[in-house]
Amino acid sequence: MKRHNFSAGPCILPQEVFEQASKAVLNFNALDLSILEISHRSKDFVQVIESARSLVKKLLKLGDDYEVLFLQGGASLQFVMVPFNLAKEGGNPAYLNTGTWASKAIKEAQRLSTVDIVASSKEQGFNHIPKDYTVNENADYFHCTSNNTIYGTQMKSFPDVKVPLVCDMSSDIFSRELDFTKFDLIYAGAQKNMGPAGATLVVVKKDILGKTGRNIPAYLDYQVHIDKDSMFNTPSVFAVYVSMLTLHWLDQQGGIPAIEKINQEKANLLYAEIERNPMFKAYAVAEDRSTMNATFNLVDEAYQDKFDGIWMDAGINGLKGHRSVGGYRASMYNALSLESVQVLVDCMQELEKQA
Amino acid sequence: MKRHNFSAGPCILPQEVFEQASKAVLNFNALDLSILEISHRSKDFVQVIESARSLVKKLLKLGDDYEVLFLQGGASLQFVMVPFNLAKEGGNPAYLNTGTWASKAIKEAQRLSTVDIVASSKEQGFNHIPKDYTVNENADYFHCTSNNTIYGTQMKSFPDVKVPLVCDMSSDIFSRELDFTKFDLIYAGAQKNMGPAGATLVVVKKDILGKTGRNIPAYLDYQVHIDKDSMFNTPSVFAVYVSMLTLHWLDQQGGIPAIEKINQEKANLLYAEIERNPMFKAYAVAEDRSTMNATFNLVDEAYQDKFDGIWMDAGINGLKGHRSVGGYRASMYNALSLESVQVLVDCMQELEKQA
Repeated sequence: MKRHNFSAGPCILPQEVFEQASKAVLNFNALDLSILEISHRSKDFVQVIESARSLVKKLLKLGDDYEVLFLQGGASLQFVMVPFNLAKEGGNPAYLNTGTWASKAIKEAQRLSTVDIVASSKEQGFNHIPKDYTVNENADYFHCTSNNTIYGTQMKSFPDVKVPLVCDMSSDIFSRELDFTKFDLIYAGAQKNMGPAGATLVVVKKDILGKTGRNIPAYLDYQVHIDKDSMFNTPSVFAVYVSMLTLHWLDQQGGIPAIEKINQEKANLLYAEIERNPMFKAYAVAEDRSTMNATFNLVDEAYQDKFDGIWMDAGINGLKGHRSVGGYRASMYNALSLESVQVLVDCMQELEKQA
Repeated sequence: MKRHNFSAGPCILPQEVFEQASKAVLNFNALDLSILEISHRSKDFVQVIESARSLVKKLLKLGDDYEVLFLQGGASLQFVMVPFNLAKEGGNPAYLNTGTWASKAIKEAQRLSTVDIVASSKEQGFNHIPKDYTVNENADYFHCTSNNTIYGTQMKSFPDVKVPLVCDMSSDIFSRELDFTKFDLIYAGAQKNMGPAGATLVVVKKDILGKTGRNIPAYLDYQVHIDKDSMFNTPSVFAVYVSMLTLHWLDQQGGIPAIEKINQEKANLLYAEIERNPMFKAYAVAEDRSTMNATFNLVDEAYQDKFDGIWMDAGINGLKGHRSVGGYRASMYNALSLESVQVLVDCMQELEKQA
């Protein structure tokens, strides 16, 4: 059965990536060895991680002033590493609160410093991105979340700040063109547009490090990982390998400009239907709607069982909304086809007919 | 070509595990979805992690006073987490220094507290396990490393201590029978006897936690992960899945008693040849030799190219010693067959003939 996987992450990856990864689990690079049993210091794997690293720089158009790391622990460990590496003792990092994950990042920074929350949309159920705020020039850094997976909102522009700009791009990296040189630190759990769960991408501008005077535990210290080319300890070999395959696939598609065009078409198709169809209403305000995660609810929840039956029968997977928002969430990551979004739109129209 | 993989880790896993994992990358549990694209909160994956957890308890014969966690970051992150969770401010944890990894664990504990190094074999190139030492009754805990992958030494017994006993078992867990109830905290990177790189096993006795009064970053706090059943954040889904398959395989083989018997046969075969063959000498002292990693050198290094040619031609992989010891290291983890060890022994005898 052809499945249409709208899962919020881990999520759909290109079919050819699944096929190549499946083969490598049996026999990698014709070595007669599985990708799971080779040394992370073997020539073949070093080539994989170096290729992944250079694809990241190529796709994001970044130069040698940036380092690319593949770590573990997801964005949740980055919430800890960012203040350890960038917040001075007694310093004041600035954070924008746009959702659950931003709130968690703030909580971790608060263990080490006094955080200045420049703005928050919490009172409005995080249904929009705050825009009127200023970032103090003396802040250690400014932290924001580019896309809020749970609420379906996305920052369409980023402020010009005079301090290091740090961004959690877990759920929309590699999905749209941005001037990535504007950012000093970008991090992302792999399990959306980059690969499977188990790897964490960190892109860091080298000159922002080494300024806090903190005694940083080795694993939490970006400089330690930079000095060892992400081999300070055994990396998540398979997750890095599948990420490399996915980045290579994206490059072959024409890179970020090409995929952004398709992502915009998918989002336009779905949001137009949410607006048109009287059975549904959008959760996020129009101007801040995410191209990655569309959140919407039934106007009349009595139709829930009927609608669930329709989309499940159509082969759709992973459409249930997060418990904090309820309703539905359609995650339309890079590897999801326009055809799958059309299937969802057809289901929404089918409900309208049956109602 | 049939390969004999003596790699030190990531390392050989059972062939049937590779086959099942390869299939799951294409279609997991007949869901028409890849294991790489399903939600970690899906019923099917929750079943995987619960099954892995209960297999760990079954194989180690542990009761409900222990919690089993699947984290990320390897033993290197555990070096940080152990003192954060168990060392009081101003406390004195006790460490045994038996090698490179023990030294790294000590270094991380020293960032948070004054460490009492009860004994060290560093001056002798870590070629043995120190045995005459006492652990202060007021220590926060006692930390040791059960098997030293780089030097090929293994603790054959563990001291009776009156403080929590913490053990890094990364390279020999599930390889031999021990009274695991003697330990209060066991951790292990998955990439030896448990699975692929990317998952970290932590087994912790609940009553030792919550006593330091420290403000612990969320990801580093064992209690946070316990409260969320290892789902505080997205776990390394595929690595946990392959670990579950490997644990299931071990259970089907007859568990630890059955595999220990084979591991002992493999070690006896190889060490007997190292002793007998005049071309080779062992690195570690006899009584402390590891059943997992045998370290040995050529008596005359002039034969290196010849020996390397012989074992490479025989399909052997991963025999080069670690740069700190040189020579050779044969890692004989659970999934390596007695037949592969016989192939290595044949190569050693072939060198003797040709010399």
